[in-house]
Order: sequence, then C-alpha cells, then structure tokens
Amino acid sequence: VKHWYYETFAEPLVDIERGLYRFFKNRPQVMPLFWEMVTHHFGWSADLETLSPDKVLSGMNGKRSRPLLTLLVAKALTGDYQVALPAALGIEIVHNFTLVHDDVMDKSLERRHRPTLWAKWGSSQAVNTGDGLYSLGIESVCDSMARGVSAERTVEAVRLLTDSCVATVEGQMLDIAFEQRLDVTSEEYITMIEHKSGILIACSTAMGALMAGASPEVQTSYRQFGRSIGIAFQIWDDYLGIWGEPETTGKSASSDIESRKKSYPILVALERAQGKSREKLLSIYQQDQVSAKDVKTVLDILGEVDAVAQTRQMLDVFFEEGLDALADTGIDNTSQERVRELSKFLVARDY
Amino acid sequence: VKHWYYETFAEPLVDIERGLYRFFKNRPQVMPLFWEMVTHHFGWSADLETLSPDKVLSGMNGKRSRPLLTLLVAKALTGDYQVALPAALGIEIVHNFTLVHDDVMDKSLERRHRPTLWAKWGSSQAVNTGDGLYSLGIESVCDSMARGVSAERTVEAVRLLTDSCVATVEGQMLDIAFEQRLDVTSEEYITMIEHKSGILIACSTAMGALMAGASPEVQTSYRQFGRSIGIAFQIWDDYLGIWGEPETTGKSASSDIESRKKSYPILVALERAQGKSREKLLSIYQQDQVSAKDVKTVLDILGEVDAVAQTRQMLDVFFEEGLDALADTGIDNTSQERVRELSKFLVARDY
Repeated sequence: VKHWYYETFAEPLVDIERGLYRFFKNRPQVMPLFWEMVTHHFGWSADLETLSPDKVLSGMNGKRSRPLLTLLVAKALTGDYQVALPAALGIEIVHNFTLVHDDVMDKSLERRHRPTLWAKWGSSQAVNTGDGLYSLGIESVCDSMARGVSAERTVEAVRLLTDSCVATVEGQMLDIAFEQRLDVTSEEYITMIEHKSGILIACSTAMGALMAGASPEVQTSYRQFGRSIGIAFQIWDDYLGIWGEPETTGKSASSDIESRKKSYPILVALERAQGKSREKLLSIYQQDQVSAKDVKTVLDILGEVDAVAQTRQMLDVFFEEGLDALADTGIDNTSQERVRELSKFLVARDY
Repeated sequence: VKHWYYETFAEPLVDIERGLYRFFKNRPQVMPLFWEMVTHHFGWSADLETLSPDKVLSGMNGKRSRPLLTLLVAKALTGDYQVALPAALGIEIVHNFTLVHDDVMDKSLERRHRPTLWAKWGSSQAVNTGDGLYSLGIESVCDSMARGVSAERTVEAVRLLTDSCVATVEGQMLDIAFEQRLDVTSEEYITMIEHKSGILIACSTAMGALMAGASPEVQTSYRQFGRSIGIAFQIWDDYLGIWGEPETTGKSASSDIESRKKSYPILVALERAQGKSREKLLSIYQQDQVSAKDVKTVLDILGEVDAVAQTRQMLDVFFEEGLDALADTGIDNTSQERVRELSKFLVARDY
C-alpha cells in the first residue's frame, strides 16, 4: 500500500519535496543553526535538486498528504497544480511547525525513528525553529502571487491558513486541558480532534479550490470534505493505537493504552462501562504506570462495551460525510478520482 | 516622563489599547482558556470599551511603543492614522507572541510584576497561546483591507511582518546560542540585538509608511530609522541593567551582573580587559552564583576599561544614525516632530 502511494503520486510528491527543500535552501541564512535544524527535521541528507526522483521519494520523511491534497484538488479543477504549489508548501511548513511544538509539549524523544528537535537542541531552540517555520509557511503562501494568483486571492489564502492555525492551536489547548480530566465526553473529544487535525486538512483541500479559482460553493464543499476525512483519519489513528498490528503500525500493540492516552475508544468505554468495569478503568487511567495485566483488563473492558464497533462506526460516519461533500463539488474526472483514492488511503492507512 | 508619554500620545494609545481588546473580544471563543490567558497577559481586568480614556491609559500594562510608532508615522505622512490601525495592532500582537515564548525560554516568573503565562498555566499552554497570538497578529494585518488598503499592499504588509518575525526568531536563536559562549564579540552582539529587537521596530516604522502609501524610498528611510533606534533602545536597556537607578528601573542595581547576562558593556570588558582583570571576569561569568563582592569586581573592571563611555558612544552612534534616516524621509511637520520625540523618549526612558 505504501508502494501504491509513492507510485501513484510520484510527480506531485517530488514537486512538493523539492519545493520544500528549495524554499528553505534559497533564503539568506543569518543563523546556520536554523537551516541545520530544518534539514534534520525534514530528514534531508542530500541536495534534493540533483537527486533523482526515485531517491527523493524513497528518502521522504513524512507522507506530505496535506500539500498533496491541495495539489490534487487544484488539478481536479483546472487540470494543473503548479499555481497551487506555493500555498501547498505553506500548509506543509505550517503543519511541521505544529509537529515541532507538539514534540516539545509532549516531550516526545523521537519522530519517525529520529531524535526530535527539542531532544537534540533543547526546547528553546525547538520553540524558536517552530516559530520560524510558521513565519516561512505564511511567506510561502504569499509567493503564490509570483505564479499569477491575484493579491485578493493571496490575502484570502493567508487568512484561510492563519484561521486554520488558530483552530489547530485551540485543538491542542483542548487536548492538553483534557489530560487533567477523566470526564471528557466522546463528543468533546470529536470537537478537539476536529480542531487539532481536521481543520488543517480542511484548509488543505479548500486551499486547492481557492488557488484554482473555484466558486465559494465548491470551495466550501472541498473544505467540508477535508474536515470530515480529517476527523475520520484521527479516529483511525486512535483505532490503530489500540488494535493495530505492531508490524504495520511500527508501534507496540496497545501503545495508546500503555501511555494512558484517552483516545476515542477509551472515552467510549468510560461512557459505557458500568459498576466494577468502570471503577477498574478509572483506576487504571489514574495510575502513573500501566502493567501488562492492566492493558489486558482495559482490552477486556473495551470488548465488553463493544468499543471496536463504535469506533469503526464513527469512522464510517465521518468518512461517508466526507465522500458526500466531495460529490457535492460536482467535479468528476480522473484527478477527482485520485482525490477520492487518497482519502480512502488516509483512513485505512495500514503501515 | 512617564506622565509626558501618556499625555502626549493619549489619543493613539487609547485607540491601540481598545483596538487590541476589541480584536480579541469579538472573535468566536472556541476555547475560553485562550481568552483568559490573553486578558491576563495584556492585563485587562475591565471592559475597555466602556472604560473612560483616562482609566484605559492608567491601566495599560505595556507602553505599546511599536504600534504607536506605526500610527505616528502614518499620521506624519497623511494627517490621519486610522488606515494603519489594524497593521499596528498586528505588530503589537506579534510582539506579545514573542514575549510569551521568551518568558517560557528564559523561565521568567514575572513580567510587569505579574505572573507570566507559563508560570500560571504551564509552558505547554503558554507556547500554544503564543502560537495563537502569532496567527491573530497576521489576521489583524489582513483586516487592513476593511479600511481601504489594497490587497497588493496588504500582502506586502503581511510579508513585512513575517520577514521581521523570521529575523526576530533568528535573533532569539543567536541570543540562546550566545549563552553557551564566552567569546561573543561586541560586533556579533550588535547583530543579535539588531535581529532580536531592531527589526521588529524597523517593521513598525516601515509599516506606518507602507499603510500611508509612501514611496519605496520613504519606506526605506523610515525602516532604517526604526532599525537604528531599535538597536539604540536595546543598548540603553543594557546600560540601565548595570548602571540604572533601582528607583527608576524597578530592578535591583546591577541586576544584569547578578544574572550574568552578557550584555553589551560586559562584552566590551571581555574584549578590552587584560591579565588578571580578564581572568577574574571570565571566572565570574562561569560561576553559577554571583556574590555582592563579584558584582563589585565586575563594576570595577567595567570602570577600568571605560565601558560606560563605550556603551554611551555606541548608543549615540545608532541614535544619530536613526535621526539621520528620519531626516532623509523629507517629512517635516508636527506629527514627524512627535515621532522624533518618541524615539528620544525610548532611548532615554528613565523609569
């Protein structure tokens, strides 16, 4: 499946990866440390401008699915995606700013099997690099004007991205506030993931439509599509964090239980479990450490309340909602089919 | 002198403070915590829309000198500053984003005699609030279009602000990297403060000219003026950190020596001191704690190498350079005179 992804989307993915590299490489380097941290974070160890497309693809340290959505939507609407490239890169850069800051907040030591920026350079320089990435993400959106996008549309694109960032930040604030609570409802949780991940994915699809000059109605449909698949994508991530195969997820089985993450299935169980099961669950989620026996207990309780079915059902609800919105765009061509395939891949990504 | 400032600039300062309050108050609040943290940071404890101008001024928790520069420059050029207000607010919001993140990095517990955001809500939520403020600062600049600014000029304004932010971040990265070094030259130090503070002040003055529709040449002169007085302002801050009167600075005497801050006068001493003096100085700046006797020793060495005169001279060089650039704008009227007075006030601010 991973192979399918990099083969099907080879051309736009190479354009994205080289575009990111060029964007950072070509700016004046006041502070060599910034470039060093950026190249480490993006996983660049060679000059991407001279590297063959195959090597660019095989060296990619991330799926770049957000800018890919932007480019595919633009192509579905106009037959070409070059006009949307600077804005697509801006979204990926901003997404990476949020990853760098999230790693500081979550004290994550590794990302994609490599040390995180704060683990290598300290949290201050990681916060700084994140702030710098955010600035440059906005500047990349402004570069759209050099590709013939009008100033009016460029301002709209900046607003679309900054509005989405505010939502992402609010989602992250909710997530951190939830850590202190055991009474978070599954509904509140959906609001949180909508903000923390859904809205930036909605921004990615809406940005493609905006750069392609689509009508406000079509932009709205693409935005709703992105929002819904963004939520479904996060629910699928929660599913894999508990029931995913270690060989395919690259994490230990039940890793989200081990880290006592209050993900969607756990919140379902907290809402549904009664009596002793509920007491046990609450007690395990208040412990500092979780034993193998505790993991087994949690899995049993999840089984009792049928959290698997509920999780899969919610995923389907949002995914279907997304496909309906995609159909509402009224666009039907090969590129649009690619957009649909990509969204399926994102929700059932089994690697 | 403080009285002079709030009296002379009462009208624009009230417009700035109320503008900031309204900007945050009127947006939809997904996350009430964000509004709570923002009001705490800005020091708002009442509804500023109904508060009398006098009370707005006396309650101000910061000088708001950057947006004030923007408004005064716009007024000097066109006789009115309303067109520049959203961009001026954007700069102040972005400046406050950098303060919130700096407090996390420096582990500062208080700002203006009140707990910092990270001290009250933890570093994660403070980083998040800073990120949110940055987004909203850019959005405020985009609001310029509602005051009749063209989309082209609005994109230029966004770029001016994000470019300045990249420079500010690079300055902060340099500052943190310098903490680990004892061989920072006074020249490197000037580059650091130019980036960390000078360029956002340059952005403030250039933004006023841009919003007023000034020619590129006039914009450049105002930018150079802001850059130079920004550097002078920082050197003056370093001067006060060592030789300022506790009654007027609100800090203990020699506070920068106590915290072993490698400010401009100290770097001059590290460059000029010879033999035993140099050894003593290096040894004190490698200690974890600094005694009252050490402070006295450092002050003596600063006296030996005449660091006071060198510091004052550098301040004068940059201040004069700033006034020359201001004269180069070719503007001469009452509002321009106010700009000049404000810059004098910033460099000799003795409270």
